[in-house]
Amino acid sequence: MTGTPNRDPVIALDVMSGEAGAAEAVAAADIAAERYPRLSFLLFGHQPVIAAELERWPRLSARAEVIHSDDVVAMGDKPSQALRRARTTSMGMAIDAVKQGKANAAVSAGNTGALMAMSLFSLRTMPGIDRPALAAVLPTLKSESVMLDLGANTECDATNLVQFAVMGAAFARTVLGLERPKVALLNIGEEELKGTGEIRAAATVLKGARLPMQFLGFVEGDKIGSGDVDVVVTDGFSGNIALKTAEGTSRLVTGLLGNAFRSSIWGKLGYFIARGALESLRAHLDPNAHNGAVFLGLNGIVVKSHGSANARGLANAIGVAHDLITDDVSRRIRDDLAGVNMALATTLEPDAA
Amino acid sequence: MTGTPNRDPVIALDVMSGEAGAAEAVAAADIAAERYPRLSFLLFGHQPVIAAELERWPRLSARAEVIHSDDVVAMGDKPSQALRRARTTSMGMAIDAVKQGKANAAVSAGNTGALMAMSLFSLRTMPGIDRPALAAVLPTLKSESVMLDLGANTECDATNLVQFAVMGAAFARTVLGLERPKVALLNIGEEELKGTGEIRAAATVLKGARLPMQFLGFVEGDKIGSGDVDVVVTDGFSGNIALKTAEGTSRLVTGLLGNAFRSSIWGKLGYFIARGALESLRAHLDPNAHNGAVFLGLNGIVVKSHGSANARGLANAIGVAHDLITDDVSRRIRDDLAGVNMALATTLEPDAA
Repeated sequence: MTGTPNRDPVIALDVMSGEAGAAEAVAAADIAAERYPRLSFLLFGHQPVIAAELERWPRLSARAEVIHSDDVVAMGDKPSQALRRARTTSMGMAIDAVKQGKANAAVSAGNTGALMAMSLFSLRTMPGIDRPALAAVLPTLKSESVMLDLGANTECDATNLVQFAVMGAAFARTVLGLERPKVALLNIGEEELKGTGEIRAAATVLKGARLPMQFLGFVEGDKIGSGDVDVVVTDGFSGNIALKTAEGTSRLVTGLLGNAFRSSIWGKLGYFIARGALESLRAHLDPNAHNGAVFLGLNGIVVKSHGSANARGLANAIGVAHDLITDDVSRRIRDDLAGVNMALATTLEPDAA
Repeated sequence: MTGTPNRDPVIALDVMSGEAGAAEAVAAADIAAERYPRLSFLLFGHQPVIAAELERWPRLSARAEVIHSDDVVAMGDKPSQALRRARTTSMGMAIDAVKQGKANAAVSAGNTGALMAMSLFSLRTMPGIDRPALAAVLPTLKSESVMLDLGANTECDATNLVQFAVMGAAFARTVLGLERPKVALLNIGEEELKGTGEIRAAATVLKGARLPMQFLGFVEGDKIGSGDVDVVVTDGFSGNIALKTAEGTSRLVTGLLGNAFRSSIWGKLGYFIARGALESLRAHLDPNAHNGAVFLGLNGIVVKSHGSANARGLANAIGVAHDLITDDVSRRIRDDLAGVNMALATTLEPDAA
């Protein structure tokens, strides 16, 4: 179910749940099939639709099996509603394939809450992990960083935060290719006395633990985009607020920029001349380039693509799943947890944990 | 101490505590003196330094009194350290002038934690307010919005959040000139079941209360910059994270934009041609243009300027203080609190409050 696969890696792809539609999802699988020649696919969704799309992609067809489902989780479905249809929906069946050992990772662009609920219910948390966390890669001024939890857990205690740090560091080693990522806890100041009791207790444990990371202590929200930290650890409430605020601010600034270019003939001419250079800005901020959030801490790999990702974006999410399989991130997390469990047990007072 | 002044408004300006220095602070007072012909000043700080600066500004000199202090709160001082020097520092003495009724508002560009501690200790909270909140005006895609609390209170209960909503709406009516501002609670989803118990309980109270605002329910972080909401209400932890994340993301995008323009000769040429249009972007995002955070809920007005604000920025903060005095925001908050107290008492269960 976990561990480095002896056979070639298999992706269980939920073809039906994204906003972009089945055609984009099948095209994404073909892009990934080209990038990773050993990868094969289980494609979950409406069989006639997928079969028709596959006719366009002979390379993918040779390495894909279609598994039919009539039912689809809608973007507006409540997690509890979706959970009852785990056996009949393309999303639920893709996750089940991971549980059954038929695939090494599930990838879906569907409803986050439903994917989280189904994944947790079906795969359960890894031994030593109390709660899974949603992690993603974000653009920074220098390159990229990882942030977690992005909304799986509204309230977190010190133990959760320490486990998130361990999982986030293992994730960063895989997706950012770093030996000893720089890890910090998101806080409202860098001084030791700032923030909640939970955050301060987590910092004490992480300072004392021997882990393959550099623990930097606390950082404020402005460091998320600066690139000075590789892994930003926080509870799901603050993490979701920070993620959405960053998205909104990025739209605000690029929107104002667009208004500025359109505001005069000089603006339009300047944009026309600089448009090649401005493409690099667009590319660096493009959500499709950083696509693929991951539920860490489960007995199996589940990758969440942006709902509106195009074929290239969804292919990047499949790429994240591929890297997590071949790097065996689950084993990394298990090994690192052993190093932190002693520190957790000896450092945290019962009331802080 | 509060209430619309019968006499002309007086600003107690802490000249010494900002990073920009006394010369910028005195120049700022002169800019404000030009804008508001009825405004006069108490200038707190090193008498010989201020007197030398005042020689350059005859208009201000005629309307300013210098009150000497040797001691200054440093940016790195802990609030507890600063509090002990409230009687001897320019910051503490400026706040005391508000308490004594000698000034209608204090303005400082110094250490936020120290200013908060001194203000709370000296002025105390208004009747009916449990905790003060730090509020500021932020740029949006449409115009501007207000967010609070930005870091005064790490953890907040439902009552605190309701009081913040009342204070934030009163502040928005003054600084944004809105009759019925659109108010929302910051959350990790817009559905009623999302978020913590405190937020959901606060929403129930605000939905039932008759207040001079439109209560929109919950918004996510991406709406902070969109301009769809006039007042974003949250606890000080999330608010500080969101504020700093927005600042960091704004720096990220404008930094990438600068890199893009510098990356090629076409980028440089395009920037040169469009530079007039790009000025409007810079102006809209300039922190000096939106300067002046306010501690709401105290028996007196205290405005916090950005530590690094220039003379124009600090003059804008003085302008915020002026508007709050002449609009009598304290009376507005008192009146609105009466409308919400009944709803608070009848709606909140003891465990939710």
